[in-house]
Amino acid sequence: MKKPYESITNYIYGKNTVFETICQNPKRINKIYFSDGINFDNKLKKINELAQKNSILVQFTNLNKFYKYFSGADKKIIFQGVVASVSPVEYIDFDEFLNKKSNTYRKIVILDGVEDPHNFGAIIRTLAAASFDAVIIPKHRSCPINSTVEKTSCGAVNHICIIKTNSLPSIVDTLKKNNWWIIAADGQSKDNYFDISYKDMNFAIILGAEGEGISKTLLNKADFKIKIPSNFESLNVSAACAIIVYESIRQIHQM
Amino acid sequence: MKKPYESITNYIYGKNTVFETICQNPKRINKIYFSDGINFDNKLKKINELAQKNSILVQFTNLNKFYKYFSGADKKIIFQGVVASVSPVEYIDFDEFLNKKSNTYRKIVILDGVEDPHNFGAIIRTLAAASFDAVIIPKHRSCPINSTVEKTSCGAVNHICIIKTNSLPSIVDTLKKNNWWIIAADGQSKDNYFDISYKDMNFAIILGAEGEGISKTLLNKADFKIKIPSNFESLNVSAACAIIVYESIRQIHQM
Repeated sequence: MKKPYESITNYIYGKNTVFETICQNPKRINKIYFSDGINFDNKLKKINELAQKNSILVQFTNLNKFYKYFSGADKKIIFQGVVASVSPVEYIDFDEFLNKKSNTYRKIVILDGVEDPHNFGAIIRTLAAASFDAVIIPKHRSCPINSTVEKTSCGAVNHICIIKTNSLPSIVDTLKKNNWWIIAADGQSKDNYFDISYKDMNFAIILGAEGEGISKTLLNKADFKIKIPSNFESLNVSAACAIIVYESIRQIHQM
Repeated sequence: MKKPYESITNYIYGKNTVFETICQNPKRINKIYFSDGINFDNKLKKINELAQKNSILVQFTNLNKFYKYFSGADKKIIFQGVVASVSPVEYIDFDEFLNKKSNTYRKIVILDGVEDPHNFGAIIRTLAAASFDAVIIPKHRSCPINSTVEKTSCGAVNHICIIKTNSLPSIVDTLKKNNWWIIAADGQSKDNYFDISYKDMNFAIILGAEGEGISKTLLNKADFKIKIPSNFESLNVSAACAIIVYESIRQIHQM
């Protein structure tokens, strides 16, 4: 039996995830499946209304048959009454992103080797909350945008530019040539994350995989290296991301 | 076949988790199981040395038999060559904690209804990194300290006081009587989390479950209500915890 890999990424579930997707990007949705005999709450009602408005097919069915499309970790999670088949998230072209005119300074995150889908989804959710402009991931050593990422992000994958690249070092070189500042999170650095200024500049924060950290090539290209003070092991990468990203938001708010 | 609930909580796995536990609290460990025919790396070597030093039994075996003790979500995770049978984490008595003399101001987190073990473990890891003094959870509507919590916390459950209570409101009343300040995270508040000062005081940060938030009774007792500005849905509770906790650390560092 052939089971193409895409079948894993082509279903999403959960009220918030489906709602955010149909609001932001209805064209991604091919069909919506509601649980048999379900009582619609407000969010499910809105999903149903938006489905009608966008001429998206709706079917009532037993959702158990969708278990096979989701990874082991997700099987315990209830679908919250709704599953949708979707086209994959579209990646954004880096040059297009870079050359887009913007009246404000832009802020992005670069992930070097973050392969855990829960961390990747949590990071995307935080970046959407903080109105960051994009996240850049390498083609290899990164996590595909599967149903776990879409669910953990609460649908935030539809709110933020996701850029995939063959070469993080050349992306960083291009950013630097275009007057972006490069900030690398590195447990060995002297400066704390709150010792530098994030104001009045385009900047990229690079985060590495837990344990391994950021590759030396990227680390050497950074304008600033920062650490989060810790009296225990290093922090989880999605917690570290939230802390640094929101320090930049605080500084920009408190100008 | 009787399978007592304790059997779920009595095994931990993973190099960092077992290492932190044997360093901080060797008496918790009853026996250590290494994977058959494993090549010891530095961390496993240290665990083995500490086991000898503390007279802890060691056995080499096929670790697959331990799968049944861990929940579905964990089955995909490799044990990293080591599993240990442990006594449960000991809860700390609230009065004992409160009356302990301290030369510095103390900081704690109160969790109102955080039931997801990954979030609970991630929060404990962040609190250990930030040298917080304790986390308080209600007896009902909270997550037991099971193997998922121990693993997600990277063994940080051994580094921080965990206090369980029948009544969060009476704990908060007692803290207030003892001149602690109560800070509640509430999406509806006017103040941002960086608008208040965390310096020169004992304080407790209350965080609620995602969606539901903090109960009204607790919210009404708070001295400060704070929000994290977001242009998307509310943040994940462990991300929110990391952001607020580290804002307090930043302020105390930058005195």
